[in-house]
Amino acid sequence: MQPPYLLFLGDVHDQLAAKTAHGIKDWRPEHCFGQLRLEGCVADLGLREATIAEARAAGCGTMIIAVANSGGTLAPHWAPYVIEALEAGMDVASGLHQRLVDFPEILAAAEKSGRQLFDVRHPKQRFKTGTGVKRTGKRLLMVGTDCSCGKKYSALAIEKEMRARGLPATFRGTGQTGVMISGGGVAIDAVVADFIAGAAEWLSPDNDPDHWDIVEGQGSLFHPAFAGVTIGLIHGTQPDGLVLCHEPTRTHMRALKHQPLPGLKECLEANLRAARLTNKDVKAVGVSVDSHNVPASEREDVLKRIADELGLPAVDPMIDGPGAIVDRLW
Amino acid sequence: MQPPYLLFLGDVHDQLAAKTAHGIKDWRPEHCFGQLRLEGCVADLGLREATIAEARAAGCGTMIIAVANSGGTLAPHWAPYVIEALEAGMDVASGLHQRLVDFPEILAAAEKSGRQLFDVRHPKQRFKTGTGVKRTGKRLLMVGTDCSCGKKYSALAIEKEMRARGLPATFRGTGQTGVMISGGGVAIDAVVADFIAGAAEWLSPDNDPDHWDIVEGQGSLFHPAFAGVTIGLIHGTQPDGLVLCHEPTRTHMRALKHQPLPGLKECLEANLRAARLTNKDVKAVGVSVDSHNVPASEREDVLKRIADELGLPAVDPMIDGPGAIVDRLW
Repeated sequence: MQPPYLLFLGDVHDQLAAKTAHGIKDWRPEHCFGQLRLEGCVADLGLREATIAEARAAGCGTMIIAVANSGGTLAPHWAPYVIEALEAGMDVASGLHQRLVDFPEILAAAEKSGRQLFDVRHPKQRFKTGTGVKRTGKRLLMVGTDCSCGKKYSALAIEKEMRARGLPATFRGTGQTGVMISGGGVAIDAVVADFIAGAAEWLSPDNDPDHWDIVEGQGSLFHPAFAGVTIGLIHGTQPDGLVLCHEPTRTHMRALKHQPLPGLKECLEANLRAARLTNKDVKAVGVSVDSHNVPASEREDVLKRIADELGLPAVDPMIDGPGAIVDRLW
Repeated sequence: MQPPYLLFLGDVHDQLAAKTAHGIKDWRPEHCFGQLRLEGCVADLGLREATIAEARAAGCGTMIIAVANSGGTLAPHWAPYVIEALEAGMDVASGLHQRLVDFPEILAAAEKSGRQLFDVRHPKQRFKTGTGVKRTGKRLLMVGTDCSCGKKYSALAIEKEMRARGLPATFRGTGQTGVMISGGGVAIDAVVADFIAGAAEWLSPDNDPDHWDIVEGQGSLFHPAFAGVTIGLIHGTQPDGLVLCHEPTRTHMRALKHQPLPGLKECLEANLRAARLTNKDVKAVGVSVDSHNVPASEREDVLKRIADELGLPAVDPMIDGPGAIVDRLW
């Protein structure tokens, strides 16, 4: 996806609908030229307001539909803006469930203008099945006790810290928002099951010996719905290092009240065991704790208890920064 | 898929191209009315030769394209037979990579005649994500040290033996051929990654307390390409019992010379650990050994060594029968 971006916010009725847009703006502000909001739009990124013509004149390469309408559909009155952007010479990316390419008039406009449509939830690439063959370069993978416990933000914070230190690092997005933020990657949960590991291999190709891919994790080996995505991503990434992500106030797996969270040690061990299949030298590097639900007075204790239990640094990357984790990379 | 079946063999040039057809005939002879072969066809199932009109007159419900052309495509001169079958009032099922529904003239014929097209490699159902909620009835899942080590045939042999003993059992196909044989199920490796476990839950629904689903396994937890499919199938099946399938002469994972086979104990333990996430009472029931590459003089020794190592009965279901495994079900 070619930056800079024009972020299309439509006329969504709440800020939460613009979660993806916020992710892009928080982590790639340098790529965000402006926002396009229709009448009635409640979401606001605080970016400059811009029309499609203004964005194009400023060199924008891509308009991103970075909001979710109800049901993940494209509102019919949004389609003309997509077509206008294509005709103006921009590519258009979308994280909606409904595909842009399924609108004949949008597809026709893309073909006529020679621009690309990126339906991020519907990978177009044809992946190969995984091979497990060792690649050059190093990889750090986020794994978790559950879904939605900070894997994406941990990876992004680690990449940012490494770059600030002058270390060669590339964030690799594996979910819809992560792909939008990185302007590439693959929504790995949308890949056909046979190709999960193969897609993860494609995602983090051969690289310089001292380069780190910082790979956004997905799901959890202990989640009864999504462990297949998780293990495929582990095997395909062949990580050199793992960061365990954890939300310490959670009492059960997300959306599944009957399913308890795994113990931290049990969870880390299971992830290391799975990772050894394609990289026998894999190491645990640290614990990334999403502590925003922990009372401030208990935060230090919670982090210390986790660090002591696992013998690893435990930090909240959004509060403490991920420095203690980055310190341990080699 | 409505039996009886007319098996369409086209004009394939070798018997191997008819592997799926052989599976259906070997395991569901009672559903096979006849075969339809075009001039030059080398494959032969030994079934009665029948035209579409004859098959329909005899009450055939489905014509199955049970062969693979080069590349998994539908040969252009096969299409008229598909259309003739639809017009005669039969559904048509296909295991080809290329979808029948992508041929406009075939789709039109299906719509006009009100018949169904089953593209077995392309599941049409919309699955939910898995929940891990316990279901009634019992489930026996085949797991393996590798791909292609007898999981399908083990499950089919166990179902057959149980039925012969008057025990309630249903084979659940999870691969292309297994789905064709069972006339239902889902090619689980073709499902989108997020829905692997959900599809496995759908595949083996609530049932009578003493009923066993005998579920065809896929891949291996130790295969760097396919472990995602395997673990999703384990979690979604929530098996009460596991049968470990193994081909003892193999020196590396199928098609991956650099990837060693796991030890039997290590492999069984990893599968039990994964299965405990959704069924903490899961038990290992037996070992199914594909011994067709083992010299006859060594067969007994090989089986005994495996049985001793794991403390479980070890049989080749195609030679010894699966009785020793079925004996241990409850």
